[in-house]
Amino acid sequence: MNGLPRSGDGSPEPSCVLLSGGVGGARMAAGLQEALPPGRLSVLGNTGDDFELLGLRVCPDLDTLLYTLAGRAHPDQGWGLQNETWQCMHALEELGAPCWFHLGDRDLATHLVRTEALKQGRSLTGVTADLARALGLKTRVLPMCDEAVGTRLRTREGLLDFQDYFVRRGQRDRVLEVEFAGIRQARATREVLEALAQAELVVLAPSNPFVSIAPILAVPGLGQALAQSAARKIAVSPIVGGRALKGPAAAMLESMGHEVSALGVARLYSGVVDEFVLDLEDEHLAPAVASLGMMPRVLPTVMSGPRERLALARALIRP
Amino acid sequence: MNGLPRSGDGSPEPSCVLLSGGVGGARMAAGLQEALPPGRLSVLGNTGDDFELLGLRVCPDLDTLLYTLAGRAHPDQGWGLQNETWQCMHALEELGAPCWFHLGDRDLATHLVRTEALKQGRSLTGVTADLARALGLKTRVLPMCDEAVGTRLRTREGLLDFQDYFVRRGQRDRVLEVEFAGIRQARATREVLEALAQAELVVLAPSNPFVSIAPILAVPGLGQALAQSAARKIAVSPIVGGRALKGPAAAMLESMGHEVSALGVARLYSGVVDEFVLDLEDEHLAPAVASLGMMPRVLPTVMSGPRERLALARALIRP
Repeated sequence: MNGLPRSGDGSPEPSCVLLSGGVGGARMAAGLQEALPPGRLSVLGNTGDDFELLGLRVCPDLDTLLYTLAGRAHPDQGWGLQNETWQCMHALEELGAPCWFHLGDRDLATHLVRTEALKQGRSLTGVTADLARALGLKTRVLPMCDEAVGTRLRTREGLLDFQDYFVRRGQRDRVLEVEFAGIRQARATREVLEALAQAELVVLAPSNPFVSIAPILAVPGLGQALAQSAARKIAVSPIVGGRALKGPAAAMLESMGHEVSALGVARLYSGVVDEFVLDLEDEHLAPAVASLGMMPRVLPTVMSGPRERLALARALIRP
Repeated sequence: MNGLPRSGDGSPEPSCVLLSGGVGGARMAAGLQEALPPGRLSVLGNTGDDFELLGLRVCPDLDTLLYTLAGRAHPDQGWGLQNETWQCMHALEELGAPCWFHLGDRDLATHLVRTEALKQGRSLTGVTADLARALGLKTRVLPMCDEAVGTRLRTREGLLDFQDYFVRRGQRDRVLEVEFAGIRQARATREVLEALAQAELVVLAPSNPFVSIAPILAVPGLGQALAQSAARKIAVSPIVGGRALKGPAAAMLESMGHEVSALGVARLYSGVVDEFVLDLEDEHLAPAVASLGMMPRVLPTVMSGPRERLALARALIRP
């Protein structure tokens, strides 16, 4: 059993846990990975977006994390691999199979290996560690839990599975409520609890608070472990200037009755974190954040490239 | 329920059933498909070679039939698709997955669709018909049965699964005995029985008699239906000049105590067919074949290209 290296070794960098959803979280993970000594970072990935396609277990957020941390993610599109090919998908289309979710040829290998390992009884935590090792990662990528949890969105069209809402229907539905099917049967894993127990810094990535961070915090035992942790806890706003950098976070804030701003997000994390990072553009919200009992920090949060994400990570690490 | 068109419609070409294994059978199927009016051919494919790889149900003989009949088979290698790519397999190798069986990117789509359909409760006969339809085939490709049957080879190394022997170990083991695990639980399907009942011509392809044709004949109910059929029954020798054109048929004849010649094969089919086709090179064996109670026919049997396979098919169709 390998614990996280503690920074009691004299190094100034803290053991860090990142709670992460998709692309924004993966970029922050890559920045922290670069800023910290090898092995000092654990990323807790949301698995509420997971689904089954053609019998394959697909874990979009874990895969985006793995591919981004391995330096293999597609640089622009926010999912999938760079230099991907689509021969299998073209053939699937010809055979009339559902193709609304894009499965690249190389990406398919990940789903095949994971699905088979799960079928053989390996845990999602175990197979994710296997994949990370095969990709040469030193960072630990930990699913939020081993049990299947399904994020579902209540809309006027009824309850939609996450990928149905997100990919198939193109986020066009107004989200009235979010629920996590199966969450009561889930348990925080030994690996997640260990990482949280040893963490000196916990970061909530600038991911969607409702569908990326909330499911992680909702895993029984996980939220309590975070609350009990003595680590510094920081959240980074996914909303900059009232807009989400990517995805439906702003639309969800609005449709679920929250202020569409970084302050709206800060209110959701009140009591969960000690510090809240606002973008330079939102500096005027700092006093309101402070009045929620969180220390506001104002930083350039837009990770437009490797340099920006590294700079942000370094700023987060510094107390 | 669509029956085979009967040739009672005034056309001179017979309704035909082909019993087929891998590449030799698939080439004969393509020749017969071209020689007969659309829809007049049903091919009973061996499924004893089927296996599971990374959770996918792979049916090598059915796939070779489908791809060859659709004009999409790789022209030389005897398996897989033309213009295939291998990105998924390269990625699987990187992830440390078993890669002794080559899964092409486009080929994978077939296995994914089939595996998922079977999981949803569709029969192998049903999903094979779906695949044939998607590929635009008029020829019916029928699995020998819907149940899983596994061809196993007794060797000095113990009992080997067919693909283990054939692909992974490169056919290097001396085969002492062949058995078909699960065959007693199998049943001839309605579709196979119907095709045999309506057939006016039944052809045993020049496939391996032990591992391609024997499993088909061993399906309970199938051999009897063939015996009761009033159709002309012809077998084509897979051995020419004492050598197998492809695969381990000659080695198996030898290791299981049979004469390594077309005559050795003819003896295996004695009582099953009425006519036995020898290659020109084996004309001298015709009297010995006749003495087994089968009408010998001497024809150019080597299907080196589309022209040769069509000529052979036309010769078989003519009484």
